[in-house]
This record gives sequence, structure tokens and C-alpha cells, in this order.
Amino acid sequence: MQYGEVNERVVELLLQVVEEVYTDQETRSAYASDETGFYFPPDVVVKPRSKQEILEIVRIASEFKIPITPRGGGTGLSGGALPIYGGILLSTEKLNSILDIDTVSGLVITEPAVVTQVLQEEVAKLGLYYPPDPASRGSCFIGGNISEDSAGPHAFKYGTTRAYVLNLEVVTPTGETFWTGSNTTKNTTGYNLTQALVGSEGTLAIITKATLKLIAHPEDSLLLVLPFDSIEKATIAVGKIMQTGIMPAAIEFMERDALNAAKAYLQEISVSLPDATAMLWVELDGFTDTLFSQAEKISNLLSKDVYGDILFAHSNADKERLWQLRRVIGLAVKNISPYVDADTIVPRRNLPELLRRVKQLEKVYGLKTICYGHAGDGNIHVNILKGNLDDQQWKVKLENMLDDITRACVELGGTLAGEHGTGLVHKSRLPLAVPKTEIVIMKQIKRVWDPLDILNPGKIFPE
Amino acid sequence: MQYGEVNERVVELLLQVVEEVYTDQETRSAYASDETGFYFPPDVVVKPRSKQEILEIVRIASEFKIPITPRGGGTGLSGGALPIYGGILLSTEKLNSILDIDTVSGLVITEPAVVTQVLQEEVAKLGLYYPPDPASRGSCFIGGNISEDSAGPHAFKYGTTRAYVLNLEVVTPTGETFWTGSNTTKNTTGYNLTQALVGSEGTLAIITKATLKLIAHPEDSLLLVLPFDSIEKATIAVGKIMQTGIMPAAIEFMERDALNAAKAYLQEISVSLPDATAMLWVELDGFTDTLFSQAEKISNLLSKDVYGDILFAHSNADKERLWQLRRVIGLAVKNISPYVDADTIVPRRNLPELLRRVKQLEKVYGLKTICYGHAGDGNIHVNILKGNLDDQQWKVKLENMLDDITRACVELGGTLAGEHGTGLVHKSRLPLAVPKTEIVIMKQIKRVWDPLDILNPGKIFPE
Repeated sequence: MQYGEVNERVVELLLQVVEEVYTDQETRSAYASDETGFYFPPDVVVKPRSKQEILEIVRIASEFKIPITPRGGGTGLSGGALPIYGGILLSTEKLNSILDIDTVSGLVITEPAVVTQVLQEEVAKLGLYYPPDPASRGSCFIGGNISEDSAGPHAFKYGTTRAYVLNLEVVTPTGETFWTGSNTTKNTTGYNLTQALVGSEGTLAIITKATLKLIAHPEDSLLLVLPFDSIEKATIAVGKIMQTGIMPAAIEFMERDALNAAKAYLQEISVSLPDATAMLWVELDGFTDTLFSQAEKISNLLSKDVYGDILFAHSNADKERLWQLRRVIGLAVKNISPYVDADTIVPRRNLPELLRRVKQLEKVYGLKTICYGHAGDGNIHVNILKGNLDDQQWKVKLENMLDDITRACVELGGTLAGEHGTGLVHKSRLPLAVPKTEIVIMKQIKRVWDPLDILNPGKIFPE
Repeated sequence: MQYGEVNERVVELLLQVVEEVYTDQETRSAYASDETGFYFPPDVVVKPRSKQEILEIVRIASEFKIPITPRGGGTGLSGGALPIYGGILLSTEKLNSILDIDTVSGLVITEPAVVTQVLQEEVAKLGLYYPPDPASRGSCFIGGNISEDSAGPHAFKYGTTRAYVLNLEVVTPTGETFWTGSNTTKNTTGYNLTQALVGSEGTLAIITKATLKLIAHPEDSLLLVLPFDSIEKATIAVGKIMQTGIMPAAIEFMERDALNAAKAYLQEISVSLPDATAMLWVELDGFTDTLFSQAEKISNLLSKDVYGDILFAHSNADKERLWQLRRVIGLAVKNISPYVDADTIVPRRNLPELLRRVKQLEKVYGLKTICYGHAGDGNIHVNILKGNLDDQQWKVKLENMLDDITRACVELGGTLAGEHGTGLVHKSRLPLAVPKTEIVIMKQIKRVWDPLDILNPGKIFPE
């Protein structure tokens, strides 16, 4: 693919339509990476303040055939926001207002660069709940969440970001703008372009506003910490919990190394947790009265499977301390070693077998893994650590191991990526999970929206 | 659009690949209509028994450029299953097995012609819940539900069919077959073709199998019947309920005529209900202990708004009697007069205004309306009755009134069709709800999947 150059003329044109246009080394560097650790500096960084400005930028990019990579909070784990062919990095960061919260309709209209946690806290003040909670919720943007169909622990009961996206105002790479749907919880008018855009990783259109669904906030929650002396017992317990008829808000898994990494990283947090090979954290939510009887049912059911005492956290402070530990695991592992995340997902029944195979592959490749994630959804983040390998060895081993892990997921009824997207990191593996005929359709859909292939090119599809 | 003819040669070829091929008048008539009352006999009816047979049928249709219209239970209200250009009517009815229920993973793999209620009852035996419950659930098929993104009362709390569709085995109009995703509750691998197909009204691919998500079945439910002396009060109460922090399983609205029609239709059912201008039925679900305190909260909140006593139904027999009444309203109205359904939807806040406008339009056009539906979702079925108008008058008035109703929905933040699809009945109104640039994209997506325009042609898009 041949792209145009960001020359002086292009920068001049950009400056005519956007106030903030940066070509200095420092800014370009600041927007060259995300949580993957890759480094691709863009030629120019623009920070538009309106849809109109984005339209103008797209028209310039289109005229000169320059790639545009939209970027949210830069917390992605598959490289969705990396401008791999340089060009224009379009940061949405200035579009960061919540525009309207309608408590009667249960809707929020927001700009894309609102931080997920900020949105959650604002609506919670009004008794409303926006459930999707990626670990990066303190810094990731709603726009990025929509583009990646982000999830998090509470997607188990409440669904992924997709379930909350009702309507999107977008700018297409051909310079059109429209709202994709309506501000309603249901919509069967024509094809559902809103849902087609959720999870499209910023490759089809740029989100300039979103209408999200809100629900009533659960009254209370209770967090159970269940220790196990093997990964197998922990993952088998997930299936057992599901047969009680109880619908937890979240079922998280972590192995000892994951928790230890988090504890080391967050030394200021003092929690006394059992030293177990593996743990499940089960959150129950709803009316206070109902939480302890459910907890008891789960405790009784698993009393012979657990290794030591089951802990209960009920106060907000206790729960928040635990969730903070859970959320920092990714950063904590990064503190130990650079890593790449295999965002594995299989039907819940096959979790024990998936983790057995992952730990086998760990031995085969001699690459340490730290595993944790959303066990209720069968979605385990397998962090593969570089350790002290040199770059060349690491690259070869890693890619082979990732391929093998993906094959295992697919064999077990799962797929390549549960909630982090395909992006750059996993694009070579797309054909391991998706039949060729389907990839052809996906590519044609890309062409419908972006005939010049200027919007976030080089993602999702293998070269 | 010029299509090929279903001549003797085509019928011969079809007979070579499918056992059941019908060209007799009676069978063609039996598959010419759906719940819209339109009549478009196909040239030939085929009833394949496997994906392989469907592939062969599609290849024949493709070779001769003959339209294929897939058909499920034939309960559609927008004409999705009508073979408006004749050709091949492909009834999925022989593909009616539930293939696997995985209680650990919370999944069911099913063929498309399983009746929704049958699937719900089978999984309920195992403590699992498949929430989408269109009024036609006793005869509609899962495949049709997926194609229309059907909903029903419980979509309010639990989401529409879309929220439960994880993976689809499909045959495309170009004669390809694949599974669109994985048997997992989350999937961010490439574009989500599964979600792109849900609600595409049988125009993009033929569903041959589906993997659906199941959740834990709520322990219990309680149904509240709230009478009001005006439509306005009832619809305003919906918003009030939403501000209690309670998340009902369903909030249904019906005006007096809707309930009276249902009572007259189901004479054998004896229920004593207040004679109120409008009603809300609020279902609460969850643990038994929690239901009555929630009900009390709602009752107290609305004590001054209701007109007479609030009724509670808790026994299964009482609840089922009420839901039966609710579900037959559509059939009951049809018993009074042919009607066309405007599947209106607006943000909940605007329901009072929407119904005010509908009742104004009733006077303007002199066409009686009977209104009922899923008030929690802002989705009201406005049944417009033909009464004793002649066909010509009816047609003109109806189309103008439907246009006006759609304009009102769009003005109020809503859209053309909440849960019944666009199909044939509403395709002329698509441009009232969807910008032209978006329709262009939708048509290009159609072309990606179906370059010959042979799969369910003449639907969704205006001529």
C-alpha cells in the first residue's frame, strides 16, 4: 500500500482546520506507543475539538491518501492505536465531555474521550450503572472501549461494551458523518450499523459521539475470595458455580504469580490473602439481603474443593482494595518483564483443558506465563513474559507459542481474542481462527467503509 | 431486477438435491403469507434437511439467478418471509432439533427451526434461561428471531435476541458456508460478523445452526398490574419506576381496547382486571424474598397516580393467565379488523409525547389505533385498523399515517422499527429514519454478501 507523505503543504492545511497540530519529536514520540510497548511515531499529531474539525482532517487525509490512526486513551493491548504507517495520529482527547445523562430514559450521550471510570462515577451519582469495566478503566476512553468492544470482570453478568452502545455519531473515512442508529434500547431499522462498528477497532469510522444505555445500579455487592491448591480445581469450580442457578456479577481467576505481582506492585495496599496456587474471586450483586445466602450456597458447594478459608469482602473499602489489586495485575506483570498478552477465550467448560495446555506450552517454549482473567466468560489473559531472552529469540518463540495457544483455543471451541481485539499484535493469527471465506467478507466490508484504506490501516488483517 | 424463471429444469435440479420440493398450488399458497396478511406465492417450496442441501439449493438459485426467500415460523409482522418476486421459498422447518445444551458453559447449539418456547422450556428444565420472548414465541422459530433481532417483554431487562447470539453457522448466497464466530460469550477476533447478521432479516445469509448464550434462571417473579385513568399517566409512570433504582424484568403498557380485545379473544380465560383507560404490567424477578419489598416500593411511589387497586400475581397460574392475555393481543386485534403494526420506538422519556401524537393522528386520519407494547423500552406497537374502509382508501390513508408516525418517532429520538424489522411493510419509510449516506453503506454491505441480489430481495430498501 502506497501512502502520501505528510509534507509541509499537508501540515499547513491541517493547521488551517485544527488548532493543535504537532510535528515535534516529543509529541510524536508520546503518541507512538500504547500498552503493547511497540513504537511507531506518527508524522503528525492532531487534536481536533469538534466533529467538523475531524471531517476536515479526514478530507485532507483522503485527498493526499495519508493514513489516519484514531487514538483514545492509548491503553490498548493489541496495538489498535498504533500508527504503523506513520501519517496522521488523530487523538480524540479534547472531545471529553459527557453531554447528557437522561435518568428517565436510562441513556448517556457522551463524547469519545471520556474516561470510562469518570463516566461510571458520574452516572452512579444518579443511581445508574454503566457496567463495562476494563482493568484500565481509570485511563481508557469510552471511544476506545467501543472500538475494541472492551469488557472486564462485570461483562460476565452484564455483557460487553457492545450491549450498551445504542447509537454512534461517526465520521467515515470518505468524509461523511451521521448517527448510526437511534437513542433507543432496540432498533431493527435496516442493518444495525451501530453494532457493526462496535469492535471494529477504529478501522471503519471515527466515533465522535456515543449514546450508551444505563441500567439501575445494584444496591450492594459481596466479594468472595476462594483459594485452591491447583489451577485445575479453580477452573473446574467455575463450572460448578454455574450449576447452582446463581448468576454472579463476576467470576475472576488468578494464579499465584499474578496476585503476587500485584501485591508487590501495590505495596501500599495491605490485604491479607491466602497463599494459594490459584484463586477465584466471585462477586455477587443485588439486594443486600440476598448476598449472604448466595455466598453460603457457593461456600457450601465448594467447601471440599477449596484450600483453606473462603474470605468475604463486604465493605466498600475492602472490596475496592481487592479490585485495585485485580486491576493492576497487567501493569504489575509489566514491571517484572515485558510481556505479550494472549487474550484466550473458550467455552467455560473447557477452561481446565485450556490452562493445562497453556502450562504445557510454557514448558515447551521455556517462556513463563502468568494467567488471570474473566473465568466466568472463559476468558483468560495469558501474559507471556520475555524475561531475559534476547529480542530475536523472544520474537520467534513468542510468535510460535501464540500460534499454538490460538490453535488450542480454536480446538476447544474458542477463538483468538476475547476482549482485547486483533489489532496489530494478533493479525497474523487471524487465519487460525477465522475461515478464509469470512476474512474475504471482512475485507470487503472494510472496503465499503474505507475504499482508500486510510483509516487505521495495517490492523486486523494479515499482510 | 431481472430474475430467472423456476422452470422444469430448475425443479428437476432441486429434486436431485432435496427430497421435499413442492410446486402444487396448495403448498405454494400455504407459504405465500405471514402475519402481515400479504399474499405472494412462491414458484416452488423446498424443505431441506441439512446444510448440505441448502448449499446445493443456493448453488442452483445462483446459477439461474432465482430469488430465495428463507422462512422460519412465518409469524413476522414486517413481511420478512414473503417471496415477493416468487422464486424459491426455502422453509427451514425440517431443521428443528436442539443439538446440545451445555449447562456448564451456559450454551445451547440449535437448528434454526426450533420454536422459541420449546427452546425456552427445554433449557428451563436444566435451570437455565433464554430470555427473548416475542409474543409469538409459541410458534416463531429461533432462526426468525435471530434474523429479526426479535425481543418481547423481557428484552427490557435482558436484552434482545442479539444479546444471546454467539455464533452462527450460515450458508451465504454465494454458496459458502462457515461459522461466523466462536462458542464464547465474548469475541473480538476481526469484525463481528455474527452481530452483523443478527437483525439482517434473512437478506445476507441463511442460518443453519446457532449457538446461543443461556443464563441462570431467576428463582421467582411477581407481576404487578397498575391501572391508570389516562394513557399519559401510565406512560409517565414508566419513567417514575425507572427512577426508583429497581430494574424490573418487564414493563408492559396496554390501553383499554387492547386488553378488551384480548379478553374477548380468550374467553375461556377468566381474569378479573380493572376497567382502566391504560395499564402498566410490571414484572419483577429474582429471589422470592426481594420481590414484595420492590413491589411495595413501586406501589407506594405510584399510589396517587393509579386509578384503583394495584393487583399482584404471584402464582404461576395467575401470571401465566395474564401473560397469555398479553401475548394474544396481536391476534385479538386481527380478529376485530385487518391491521398494520407501526412498531414505534422512542427514548422512554418521550413515550407520553409519542402516544399523544399517535392519538392525534388517529383523529386526523380517522383510522382507529390500538396501542400496547414494551413501555420500558419505549417500544409501543401501534396497531392501525382497517375497519370498514375500502382497499384503496385504506392504502392511501395508512401509508400517510405510517409516514407521520415514523416522522414523530424520529423527531422524538427514536426510529422506524423497534423489534419487528423493516422488511416489506416499512421499506418505503427507511429514508425517513436513516440518512441517505447510511443507506448507501447498507446497500453496499448487502452487495458484499449477496452480489446477485438473490437472497430475500425487495426487503429493507425502498425501490
